[in-house]
Amino acid sequence: MAEEKFVREITPRDEDFAQWYTDIVLKAEMADYAPIRGCMVIRPYGFAVWENIKNDTDRRLKETGHQNAYFPMMIPESLLQKEVDHFEGFAPEVYWITHAGEDELAERLVVRPTSETIINTMYSKWIQTYRDLPLLINQWCTVFRREKTTRPFLRTVEFFWQEGHTVHETYEDAQRETLMIQEMYRQIIEEELAIPLVVGKKSDSERFAGADATYTLEAMMYDGKSLQAGTSHNLGQNFTKMFDIQYQDREGKLAYGWTTSWAITTRLIGALIMVHGDDRGMVMPPRIAPIQTVIVPIALHKEGVKEKAQELYDSLKGRFAVKLDDREQYSPGWKFNQWELKGVPLRIEIGPKDIEKNQVVFVRRDTNEKIFVSMDNLADKVDEMLETIQKDMFAAAKARMDANTFVVTDYEEFKEKMANGNPFIKGMWCGDEECEAEIKDETTATIRCIPFEEEQLSGTCIHCGKPAKHMVYYAKSY
Amino acid sequence: MAEEKFVREITPRDEDFAQWYTDIVLKAEMADYAPIRGCMVIRPYGFAVWENIKNDTDRRLKETGHQNAYFPMMIPESLLQKEVDHFEGFAPEVYWITHAGEDELAERLVVRPTSETIINTMYSKWIQTYRDLPLLINQWCTVFRREKTTRPFLRTVEFFWQEGHTVHETYEDAQRETLMIQEMYRQIIEEELAIPLVVGKKSDSERFAGADATYTLEAMMYDGKSLQAGTSHNLGQNFTKMFDIQYQDREGKLAYGWTTSWAITTRLIGALIMVHGDDRGMVMPPRIAPIQTVIVPIALHKEGVKEKAQELYDSLKGRFAVKLDDREQYSPGWKFNQWELKGVPLRIEIGPKDIEKNQVVFVRRDTNEKIFVSMDNLADKVDEMLETIQKDMFAAAKARMDANTFVVTDYEEFKEKMANGNPFIKGMWCGDEECEAEIKDETTATIRCIPFEEEQLSGTCIHCGKPAKHMVYYAKSY
Repeated sequence: MAEEKFVREITPRDEDFAQWYTDIVLKAEMADYAPIRGCMVIRPYGFAVWENIKNDTDRRLKETGHQNAYFPMMIPESLLQKEVDHFEGFAPEVYWITHAGEDELAERLVVRPTSETIINTMYSKWIQTYRDLPLLINQWCTVFRREKTTRPFLRTVEFFWQEGHTVHETYEDAQRETLMIQEMYRQIIEEELAIPLVVGKKSDSERFAGADATYTLEAMMYDGKSLQAGTSHNLGQNFTKMFDIQYQDREGKLAYGWTTSWAITTRLIGALIMVHGDDRGMVMPPRIAPIQTVIVPIALHKEGVKEKAQELYDSLKGRFAVKLDDREQYSPGWKFNQWELKGVPLRIEIGPKDIEKNQVVFVRRDTNEKIFVSMDNLADKVDEMLETIQKDMFAAAKARMDANTFVVTDYEEFKEKMANGNPFIKGMWCGDEECEAEIKDETTATIRCIPFEEEQLSGTCIHCGKPAKHMVYYAKSY
Repeated sequence: MAEEKFVREITPRDEDFAQWYTDIVLKAEMADYAPIRGCMVIRPYGFAVWENIKNDTDRRLKETGHQNAYFPMMIPESLLQKEVDHFEGFAPEVYWITHAGEDELAERLVVRPTSETIINTMYSKWIQTYRDLPLLINQWCTVFRREKTTRPFLRTVEFFWQEGHTVHETYEDAQRETLMIQEMYRQIIEEELAIPLVVGKKSDSERFAGADATYTLEAMMYDGKSLQAGTSHNLGQNFTKMFDIQYQDREGKLAYGWTTSWAITTRLIGALIMVHGDDRGMVMPPRIAPIQTVIVPIALHKEGVKEKAQELYDSLKGRFAVKLDDREQYSPGWKFNQWELKGVPLRIEIGPKDIEKNQVVFVRRDTNEKIFVSMDNLADKVDEMLETIQKDMFAAAKARMDANTFVVTDYEEFKEKMANGNPFIKGMWCGDEECEAEIKDETTATIRCIPFEEEQLSGTCIHCGKPAKHMVYYAKSY
């Protein structure tokens, strides 16, 4: 049987990070470029990752009382214009539908960039009394935003997300929801995706168009840059007043509701690659991996090997996402390369000598470590190993983030650090938007978040020297 | 506590079927009208039905080797034009994106009406050798078609579907896939949705634009009209030739692939309503019901009732989609009405007298029958009852379809029957498209399908009297 040479062709990560990223996306068949500017095709392997993220998130949302619904993708221009800040924020980046068949439409339609306007229009019909509250609705869909420079998963014209939109009786209820969702996102991203986060609040300049407050989860990529991994907005009464969402309260008076909105997106798949990937390809955290373990038989043609591999597969398949690679036209080495490229967390090798010794070989994707393991109670051992890999991947990413996070109180040192790398810098800030803008102009770094737990590093702003209001995280961002 | 009057306000089904349908959609909170012409909002209760259909279908597709992926919603005009029949079929009903922000686009983009063109463009990149085949990909998404008259679920500008797109080495493989999917759809619709079908092939005039053959599943609604519940297309080499999908075959020669595409849509929810609903509201088949059984305690304030109801709920909740309605501000009668409107298949009533007798009351939604049941092994009894309801609902719909299906060999009788109702008529056809068109002009009935099992009713076409080629089902359709 002719053997095909395995061609990995991944640019080394430290040589050209952007090219390395693109190589992994394409070679691991996560996504492909579409023949439409700025759009991608999500291939089955990449889509399976999104399905795993979606299923986990959907379960958590349902357990906390949220229901899914669906609102139209086309939004009349007049609706989008209702909330002024919101419209001004989105107008430059929306796509316009102007014709149907041969006919020009009476009113232009916006291709949904986000759904606050259409959803709140419906809510004003549905909400009558406090008994209708809280209204906790979520939508899974794609949204569309014009982008000049695009990269698969990280920034594309069309991307998947869930958008939650809730209405509450009081500010406090809305704030509780906003923070509960942020914490849910933290659990999903840290515990399932093994990506460590810095969590907190956005400064006003980075707030969502139309929100009172935006809460964020920031992750450090391998190159040190920050990626906004999820956001949760307390929208106050901005939308309920514009869309007339009034309800009869417990005293029988009319009152405006308080709303939130929040989202995570397919960007998380980009984060997965940029946090965990290496020069051999993708590395999937076990809890989110489409294939958790792959069995590769060695010397397939030797008596008993194929049967034993099948037996192992049968003993694992109910409990794990397991694949048996018994293709005869590829060598074990070719297969090792392929499954490493795809980031399968655990490889199980089994050959004639292993069968003699009643053992298999575990090879960890994250560390490349080889471990000889008895075949007895194999499923439990796979389970333990996957848990260990999950924890170790988080710990490794956390250690890298910590090692690249610095406390800086001197602006010269700040500039130098930002000029020579992409660190997270904890520093003080006066709270002034102009000061924030000047730091960005001078270093390209921005305030990524005001963490919930601020430390008192000094009494003065790192840039202007005025009294400090907050300790913030500065970083360059995706 | 003030009691609210329950207002059902459903137009009787036999008085105005269209209004009855709309009333159920709105009052049962399945969907609502959106502020965009021809679009609907799918409310949580309606969306939960779609999620159940989707989950069941997705599981079956994955078990048969299909993988999910995602292709862009925006399709460049030049791509849509590649397959001429396909373009001509869809051009009058597509929406055009012409601008982004302030700028006019260099090339207009079509809002996806279906995805053959974009998907086959990608396939031509991905498919190199016979080892890449069969390629079995499915996409869950919404599609967009301009419609003049719209009705929620049945015909809307934007609707949900899954669209499968597969590529095979031979015509026979593609044909096998096309029919396997049609049979999968039959199982979903008959066994899960309890909707009986007539299955077969479409006549050429009703074939999908760009297909060699279209296979269909036709369901009779309560008013006798036919609804196309799903279609599966053998596309032959029409798309592989236009999109240059060539592969190296087993002999090393270049060959064009053979493709299929197939879909079921949110229309099925419209069919559920129109087959099973009655004057009290929706009737959900147990296997697809978002709430399979609801426990309504009687005399909630009496000692022990609330606790016993909770105990029953706890004993059922792991196994069924069960709801405990222990709201104190509504009477049992109000709750009965609400859950009947929503079509919950089985109501379980429990009051002080029932507790004394160690019994509960089952009330079937489909027949309104009351049955006293011992509390012992309640879960098993619920399970049996739900299975019985599922079977009986199918049987009732099947009996109605059979009773309204006639064998007719005389065209005068045909016209009379079509003028006085909406029957399914089994009749002979010469195979001529003109004859088919004339029958439509004269009676508004069309050939819904050429069934797999044809009977020889007579030797001549019901309309023109020429030699008959096929026995077909004639009906008026949605």
